[in-house]
Amino acid sequence: MAGLGVGLIGTGYMGKCHALAWNAVASVFGDVERPRLVGLAEVDAALAARKANEFGFARSTDDWRDLLADPAIDVISVTTPNRLHAEMAVAALEAGKHVWCEKPMAPSLADAERMAAARRAAGKVAVMGYNYIQNPLIRHMAALIGAGAVGAVTHVRIEMDEDFMADSAEPFYWKSEASSGYGALDDFAVHPLSLLSVLVGMPVEVMASMARPYAERPLREGGRREVENHDIASVLMTFENGASGVLMANRAAWGRKGRIFIQVYGSDGSMLYDQERMNEFQFYDRNGDPAMHGFRTVLASGHHPPYGRFVPAPGHGLGFNDLKIVECRELHAAVAGAAAHVVDFDRGLAIERAVHAMARSHFERGWMNVA
Amino acid sequence: MAGLGVGLIGTGYMGKCHALAWNAVASVFGDVERPRLVGLAEVDAALAARKANEFGFARSTDDWRDLLADPAIDVISVTTPNRLHAEMAVAALEAGKHVWCEKPMAPSLADAERMAAARRAAGKVAVMGYNYIQNPLIRHMAALIGAGAVGAVTHVRIEMDEDFMADSAEPFYWKSEASSGYGALDDFAVHPLSLLSVLVGMPVEVMASMARPYAERPLREGGRREVENHDIASVLMTFENGASGVLMANRAAWGRKGRIFIQVYGSDGSMLYDQERMNEFQFYDRNGDPAMHGFRTVLASGHHPPYGRFVPAPGHGLGFNDLKIVECRELHAAVAGAAAHVVDFDRGLAIERAVHAMARSHFERGWMNVA
Amino acid sequence: MAGLGVGLIGTGYMGKCHALAWNAVASVFGDVERPRLVGLAEVDAALAARKANEFGFARSTDDWRDLLADPAIDVISVTTPNRLHAEMAVAALEAGKHVWCEKPMAPSLADAERMAAARRAAGKVAVMGYNYIQNPLIRHMAALIGAGAVGAVTHVRIEMDEDFMADSAEPFYWKSEASSGYGALDDFAVHPLSLLSVLVGMPVEVMASMARPYAERPLREGGRREVENHDIASVLMTFENGASGVLMANRAAWGRKGRIFIQVYGSDGSMLYDQERMNEFQFYDRNGDPAMHGFRTVLASGHHPPYGRFVPAPGHGLGFNDLKIVECRELHAAVAGAAAHVVDFDRGLAIERAVHAMARSHFERGWMNVA
Amino acid sequence: MAGLGVGLIGTGYMGKCHALAWNAVASVFGDVERPRLVGLAEVDAALAARKANEFGFARSTDDWRDLLADPAIDVISVTTPNRLHAEMAVAALEAGKHVWCEKPMAPSLADAERMAAARRAAGKVAVMGYNYIQNPLIRHMAALIGAGAVGAVTHVRIEMDEDFMADSAEPFYWKSEASSGYGALDDFAVHPLSLLSVLVGMPVEVMASMARPYAERPLREGGRREVENHDIASVLMTFENGASGVLMANRAAWGRKGRIFIQVYGSDGSMLYDQERMNEFQFYDRNGDPAMHGFRTVLASGHHPPYGRFVPAPGHGLGFNDLKIVECRELHAAVAGAAAHVVDFDRGLAIERAVHAMARSHFERGWMNVA
Repeated sequence: MAGLGVGLIGTGYMGKCHALAWNAVASVFGDVERPRLVGLAEVDAALAARKANEFGFARSTDDWRDLLADPAIDVISVTTPNRLHAEMAVAALEAGKHVWCEKPMAPSLADAERMAAARRAAGKVAVMGYNYIQNPLIRHMAALIGAGAVGAVTHVRIEMDEDFMADSAEPFYWKSEASSGYGALDDFAVHPLSLLSVLVGMPVEVMASMARPYAERPLREGGRREVENHDIASVLMTFENGASGVLMANRAAWGRKGRIFIQVYGSDGSMLYDQERMNEFQFYDRNGDPAMHGFRTVLASGHHPPYGRFVPAPGHGLGFNDLKIVECRELHAAVAGAAAHVVDFDRGLAIERAVHAMARSHFERGWMNVA
Repeated sequence: MAGLGVGLIGTGYMGKCHALAWNAVASVFGDVERPRLVGLAEVDAALAARKANEFGFARSTDDWRDLLADPAIDVISVTTPNRLHAEMAVAALEAGKHVWCEKPMAPSLADAERMAAARRAAGKVAVMGYNYIQNPLIRHMAALIGAGAVGAVTHVRIEMDEDFMADSAEPFYWKSEASSGYGALDDFAVHPLSLLSVLVGMPVEVMASMARPYAERPLREGGRREVENHDIASVLMTFENGASGVLMANRAAWGRKGRIFIQVYGSDGSMLYDQERMNEFQFYDRNGDPAMHGFRTVLASGHHPPYGRFVPAPGHGLGFNDLKIVECRELHAAVAGAAAHVVDFDRGLAIERAVHAMARSHFERGWMNVA
Repeated sequence: MAGLGVGLIGTGYMGKCHALAWNAVASVFGDVERPRLVGLAEVDAALAARKANEFGFARSTDDWRDLLADPAIDVISVTTPNRLHAEMAVAALEAGKHVWCEKPMAPSLADAERMAAARRAAGKVAVMGYNYIQNPLIRHMAALIGAGAVGAVTHVRIEMDEDFMADSAEPFYWKSEASSGYGALDDFAVHPLSLLSVLVGMPVEVMASMARPYAERPLREGGRREVENHDIASVLMTFENGASGVLMANRAAWGRKGRIFIQVYGSDGSMLYDQERMNEFQFYDRNGDPAMHGFRTVLASGHHPPYGRFVPAPGHGLGFNDLKIVECRELHAAVAGAAAHVVDFDRGLAIERAVHAMARSHFERGWMNVA
Repeated sequence: MAGLGVGLIGTGYMGKCHALAWNAVASVFGDVERPRLVGLAEVDAALAARKANEFGFARSTDDWRDLLADPAIDVISVTTPNRLHAEMAVAALEAGKHVWCEKPMAPSLADAERMAAARRAAGKVAVMGYNYIQNPLIRHMAALIGAGAVGAVTHVRIEMDEDFMADSAEPFYWKSEASSGYGALDDFAVHPLSLLSVLVGMPVEVMASMARPYAERPLREGGRREVENHDIASVLMTFENGASGVLMANRAAWGRKGRIFIQVYGSDGSMLYDQERMNEFQFYDRNGDPAMHGFRTVLASGHHPPYGRFVPAPGHGLGFNDLKIVECRELHAAVAGAAAHVVDFDRGLAIERAVHAMARSHFERGWMNVA
């Protein structure tokens, strides 16, 4: 059986990340046919050609619609800037292709809804690139929580912090424009939401506070310009089972590089995870001898599939890019009609809705339902 | 010069903690006169006598008002249940004694206000037992923040978590009665507030969400009873300088024993502290070679006064009870009219006001000013 | 019943530490009579008087032999420089006093043997000040190991590192003189040996390598002087049951302040401890679901006696000085003829013998039996 | 220019790891031609064919010598069992191929010497698969140490611990046979030695102690068999500059999964690294304000090349397999005649010599020079 025919749109960092995954997935897993890297598209034809060579794609084009017309292509990787996702994903679905689209869906809720509708109409697979959920340990934690390892979940805290906006002397650029979105909320909070959706479910009611650490920033050309969105967001949440929670996102948090710190408290135990140490999680079990109670640090191993597909020895560590390879394998499962651990467009849309509800709760200064 | 004459009311854990401090303060610091342990009061006369013997007090009584009448006594340690603080502290102040009162001031705001008024009327020293602020590292962090080590503070998170209410099978007892207070908010959050007041100042606006992890608890005599207050509180905060923050308290957090985790983010760096590892703090400095940036873990040492008064060698560790000895030393400073690092009754009242504002914000589901 | 009558010789840091313990032991434990602080001795009479006042001793003297003659004194704390221990301890024992002597016993093995012999002749209690073994967690670890929690011990590593000799620009002082001892080996390694003796027993064969990080040091008066002993020692060890081990000591290890890192590996699990985080230890249990295996960090609590005597709440932390209070309580047990968790003079002598065997193994470049 | 023509011998875990690297190197780095995956060899023809498909190789064979005869192949990956390395590597070199050979070189020193001689005779590139040295942080640490960031190195400790031999109930298998080597020493210690060679240089004198945690093991067929080598090795070391060190290896250390803990102490600072948290290292700088001294934890980022080739964002983490991609890139550099950060056959031979000297020192119970 032939492997999936792949078309890649975009060759920036996420394009490269998809390319690495497409190149590696068969070697790592050994249970899917090696994908056929048919073609890639990039706005500049020379760049496209160079990247096709690097990434191992058979041909290149500067017109992404070329790929949609190619019958050898089964699935389209969309790794372009967020504002282009809707157009490309919808067109690809309409052309009968499966879609693997980087997060988030789209800046506007309407576009996200349009994407989900197109997916339903096409009956194709459409997977969002929320790769943090692909960590074998996150999957293990989700399974544990589902199996009652911490009892009933009573409280959740999730923090996502980086520092790429922490330097107040950094000149104003598009990330501080209102047109780029709310700021930390949609730039960042979507990741924690994807993790919540997998671990404990989505919040049903939210109350957010967004903040500007720096009211204005210098302009490269001199003078200063007001910052139009919020680098910090803090959100109170209520979950369906009555559990409470807090989601915090700060892209101006000096010293934090890729922190996503999760605390799940339940009636029988607790679980902790930090993305900056993505190869371990912590578990506290309230059972047993109290003199021996403590958070135990579990290192990723073959006991946490599909870790063992990457390295047979425990504790040797996966990397960020490996998560994309897992995602690619899950996409294969979805295409094959098997159960897949992914954020599809429907779940992706639920995440977008939560973000917009959070933003409204900030501006209206009151609790908001997540429809 | 004679040392302070001491009267102690209450001989439970906090009474013992005060007694240890009174016994140790002169030996540790070497710069205050050894206190005279004049008398202690406990409701049971025999217990009082036994404790006087253990604690090294000269006499004992089962009537705390006896101590107020004793001219040899200069300062009264109030370590009784919270509902008795107001009556005892006010009476002691009116009797011309200094007061060292355990936290919080009183269950009702009116009583707390009465205590602060009595203090002002008496012109005596009145110190609250917020001992976490006495950690040499907290004092160092406060000094650093004040000196601009992290630049302008932009965001603060503070979490206080323990698990003594985490067991859902634990029978209902007074801690779950409405009459005992809001729950996590006044039982716990006062500590984080004392720390905030020292480190970054008090919030000016708050928005809280309180939650019940367990709606009801079993009764020892059979049957179940509804839990009347909230073991979990999450609070959005705004500070005077515009900084945002989140305060979280959970007394049903399995695995947390004495956690008070502080994150202070500023325009030039960050600072972290965890009370469960109270002999270290972390600092991130955005200056210098970026290839060497990282949170550094600073161990308590003689460079963080008054650590050196306890142990000359660095990194050897203070304990929880040592903080009370520092507090006792600061009380001496206050009595001597010197600058003292304490939460006095005025600052204590501000903490109580913040707590009540938080509770109102929960019940009214909206932001509340901290008057 | 009257409490123990106490005489204290020496008022430097360790003298203060003993004084704090004598002042606190009855309050903390509530099960021993409050000691009577009869008298203290210091070489300078004025200093002696001042310290007696600070420490709460009834009288002071500049002649330590005065204390031995005082019938009101039952036990003598010896906290003077190491070279004086033998003379004072032997004289105290001969005077019919119990002895609490700071570590190590004496610079020469002959003196240490003389001390142990005097103790046996006197039939009195003689306890060494090896306070690290008094940590409730160390006692818990010892009990666990004894109960087979890690199965048969197969391998042990213990490291003790500080940095007070790490600055190569620090002028030569007595710590670098041969007359002060071997260096890291007897200055430091005695602590790890005391811990080994409690946790897994003493080594029976050793092979050491000592090293000088700095061959010479500047003199305050100009010029340089050769360093005469070794700031670093590394020792291979074999234990009675055939287990192997390594002991490492480095007093020139930049960044280490009070590190004593212990790794105990057994046939069924492992245990870790770091003195710089003295309120936690780690335990790995090879039983149970392998997907959940990990080192768990256990915080000190009331489940680890006598922690609960200090603080009823778990995870609130003891300090270095608290260990001395525990040691004082154990001394009381020994005096009362009860089982006591202490390094007595016989065990102290075994530690000294191990140190000297290690030194010989270095100079003779071969394995040495610990007689 | 055409990319390197690749032949792969062996398709077990390390073969897969090489295959992943060959597939990814051009995409990750963007500065080398995409390799041509010409052929792979595996003993079973069907398996070979299947793996060629998975790994993206053009053809397969069950005779590895076929690959040597193929003029389209420039470099041979040797990933077979250790005992086959010498024969294959020598043959490949003699056939004019470059060689990328998994560690260690060979069980016998004679074979290792033969490999190095063949390399010199052929004038080709021959790189050992010591991938831990390829961690961007290890390279950064090496550069820092070389630049004097910790001053003169005074003491080094390196520990390598896993637990795959920790279960005493695990039946006897070839790893416990004398014919498989010394045990921990050559199975494990070669990795620490590769790291030492990069960070601080090789030891010149060694004194080892090897130990058997379990004297015998059960046989699958019933009965028990004596263990013939040593799962634990502890080695005292002296370095050329006079620095001392300890190397410890334990493959029966419950709870350790991929631990390689490195401590480098110098006259101006210290550095720490743990392979189980391979995306961070710690640095202590003795300069600056002593109140702020502490080990800082530096997360891997674009400031530590070639991390940025994998992920542009800092702190997102590389995995174990990524190190092989870096190694592949370094191999390209070596082939191109550029400076390469690799363990070549000469350095590999030095590592083997150190291992054999360590073993001799154990059996002869005395210090041994590393020739």
